[in-house]
Amino acid sequence: MNSESASRSGRPVIALLTDFGHQDTFVGQMKGVILSECREATIIDLTHESPPHNVLAGALHLSAAIGSLPDGAIVVAVVDPGVGGDRRALYFEAGGRRYIAPDNGLLSAVIVDGSPTRCLELDPGRFSVGIISRTFHGRDVFARAAGIVARGVDAAELGTALAPQDLARIDIPVPALVDHGLDGEVLIVDRYGNAMTNIPAESFAITRNAVSIECEGFRVSELMSAYASVSAGQPVALISSMNTLELAVREGSAANRYGIRPGSSVRLRQRTEQ
Amino acid sequence: MNSESASRSGRPVIALLTDFGHQDTFVGQMKGVILSECREATIIDLTHESPPHNVLAGALHLSAAIGSLPDGAIVVAVVDPGVGGDRRALYFEAGGRRYIAPDNGLLSAVIVDGSPTRCLELDPGRFSVGIISRTFHGRDVFARAAGIVARGVDAAELGTALAPQDLARIDIPVPALVDHGLDGEVLIVDRYGNAMTNIPAESFAITRNAVSIECEGFRVSELMSAYASVSAGQPVALISSMNTLELAVREGSAANRYGIRPGSSVRLRQRTEQ
Amino acid sequence: MNSESASRSGRPVIALLTDFGHQDTFVGQMKGVILSECREATIIDLTHESPPHNVLAGALHLSAAIGSLPDGAIVVAVVDPGVGGDRRALYFEAGGRRYIAPDNGLLSAVIVDGSPTRCLELDPGRFSVGIISRTFHGRDVFARAAGIVARGVDAAELGTALAPQDLARIDIPVPALVDHGLDGEVLIVDRYGNAMTNIPAESFAITRNAVSIECEGFRVSELMSAYASVSAGQPVALISSMNTLELAVREGSAANRYGIRPGSSVRLRQRTEQ
Repeated sequence: MNSESASRSGRPVIALLTDFGHQDTFVGQMKGVILSECREATIIDLTHESPPHNVLAGALHLSAAIGSLPDGAIVVAVVDPGVGGDRRALYFEAGGRRYIAPDNGLLSAVIVDGSPTRCLELDPGRFSVGIISRTFHGRDVFARAAGIVARGVDAAELGTALAPQDLARIDIPVPALVDHGLDGEVLIVDRYGNAMTNIPAESFAITRNAVSIECEGFRVSELMSAYASVSAGQPVALISSMNTLELAVREGSAANRYGIRPGSSVRLRQRTEQ
Repeated sequence: MNSESASRSGRPVIALLTDFGHQDTFVGQMKGVILSECREATIIDLTHESPPHNVLAGALHLSAAIGSLPDGAIVVAVVDPGVGGDRRALYFEAGGRRYIAPDNGLLSAVIVDGSPTRCLELDPGRFSVGIISRTFHGRDVFARAAGIVARGVDAAELGTALAPQDLARIDIPVPALVDHGLDGEVLIVDRYGNAMTNIPAESFAITRNAVSIECEGFRVSELMSAYASVSAGQPVALISSMNTLELAVREGSAANRYGIRPGSSVRLRQRTEQ
Repeated sequence: MNSESASRSGRPVIALLTDFGHQDTFVGQMKGVILSECREATIIDLTHESPPHNVLAGALHLSAAIGSLPDGAIVVAVVDPGVGGDRRALYFEAGGRRYIAPDNGLLSAVIVDGSPTRCLELDPGRFSVGIISRTFHGRDVFARAAGIVARGVDAAELGTALAPQDLARIDIPVPALVDHGLDGEVLIVDRYGNAMTNIPAESFAITRNAVSIECEGFRVSELMSAYASVSAGQPVALISSMNTLELAVREGSAANRYGIRPGSSVRLRQRTEQ
């Protein structure tokens, strides 16, 4: 798929997601290495502020973003507390995109949804340049591999085949079906203090409005269509950009107002229960 | 202008300004959508740390930045507290650049200065892909439209004509002429704690030095030519990169030292008044 | 080297390092100017969160990053407390890369390691467009020059020759050899709270493990190979991605735990001393 995809679609796109932050030059170093391998690549940032060392948070951010990427995009994801240890470095393809990451569960949402194909354990000895740092595989392994694949080298040259069922996974929280409702949880609290939950939009397909929704101090009895459906400062439940239930305060912060954080329990009930 | 401009000038440039911040993948999702439509686009960030929900602040940041953009650039600006409500989505051209944004006043400085032409209300039904989120038009409407225009589609295909005088505007604060001076205000406090005011450089054309300048606890009696005109730690008034009066402390923070913030009143007087 | 390098290697790469932060549009304005001069440039960010006005910190960040940049890359570095004063604006080439920066020592690590050639004092009068702001040479001088050089103009047209020995330098701290060891210091504390020191990896070539390492409250008696060599929460000394001694806490912050900050003294001793 590699070289075909690149020539079919124009310039290769590489999307980065890390917990490296912005205060250091780590992300810049990754980009320098990618461009050293493939001068034509277009590199975009998904986020680099994923919480440090938190593989689940990285997996959830990745899950929110990948649907927006172009066909053939190469996703390099690095939240890698085990760097320098014995966790594997991965390459696989799924849903028309290519993924490069540590084998620590960071790609769990992709693996579950996407039926990976062409799984490889990357062998840095085959493609690295100079010393491989024991603390920064983002630069010396993952970015390097991404740049090489971007310029059209067959990924198979970079490692050895791996069975998809051998990939590491972490549990992505899913809601539980209970009497007259669902018990879910908050996955991501965004910049605005809006809470993205794991309760899918489809849960509201039938009884759109006849519900009660509770999470920490947040309590509403209706699903609205938009922030603008309520007055500024009022709580509002609506469908998020991830197509899940979102809890918000219009032009305010639901997180600050109601003490909501990632992992907070969300209780959805049909209102007839009350 | 679209396809002509693109072919005349080389690769299309898209400049983004939002209040989406960096902790989430919102900006990354916008970039993914743009590149899905136009693989050749070069995307740059103006800022994504514009204060949340603050349309005036976004308008001021935009005003500071657009003069540096190349001819034909497509500016996508999203500070959009009314997302999902009934505010319109806009496209227009002004000063050789193209603008895509919610119709909430965010482009007020451009409208006032630039005499918009080819104004359109974007009709997402004509060009969107899949479900349009009610919370994230930045991705599903504005980025999508930008990518389509960038690859050379005539913007007229994306919406219906709108009269320029119907565009929403907010008041951009302007200084008031008073006896022997001007009363202005602070528009932006930057990363260093320097305060950009709305008092134009031209105010100093005649009596460059014979002035007094006051703002909160800040007080100087001279306009200097550079930070380096005073010693480290000293207050200094000079002409900003926006070509307006700026209040600073050399290698320090005027904002922290003197309690200056956006909206603080600035009093400029000819010194003969004292 | 300019036009040859560009044509030899494909699209020009420009890497930016500043203390401009992300809250303002300063970096976006620089990118707009670069693309106005050279639509084909690929621009990457090394970091923009270098501590304000701190030339040494910028020099150290630059030193960490440049080794990852592609051949021919143009580095634009701006930590410039003397902007608008009489410090020179520089262009030079070293190690196959091109550098544009204020002449204030920001490029000291490059100068020491790289034997600059083709040193020039940039003369903005030859190439600037419109008024040159006295507060923002990053946009009006350095970005402008970078874009012009990127599109293949010979740098010699932008200024006058300068002798390499006349370039401003600041002292980059180097470790001192003492009885049975080295006294070094912490250069950078990264996002995770890991401390990068100036003690080179080669110091451990012989007696890899027979050491004691102390810095503020941090104390270990062994150099490990990776974070994963110790349990979560434990202190660990290892070789950093800069190929120097790094002090860390696995999945924690050495800076917070032990009070380590840039400039903290690091004491390395052969253990036989004890």
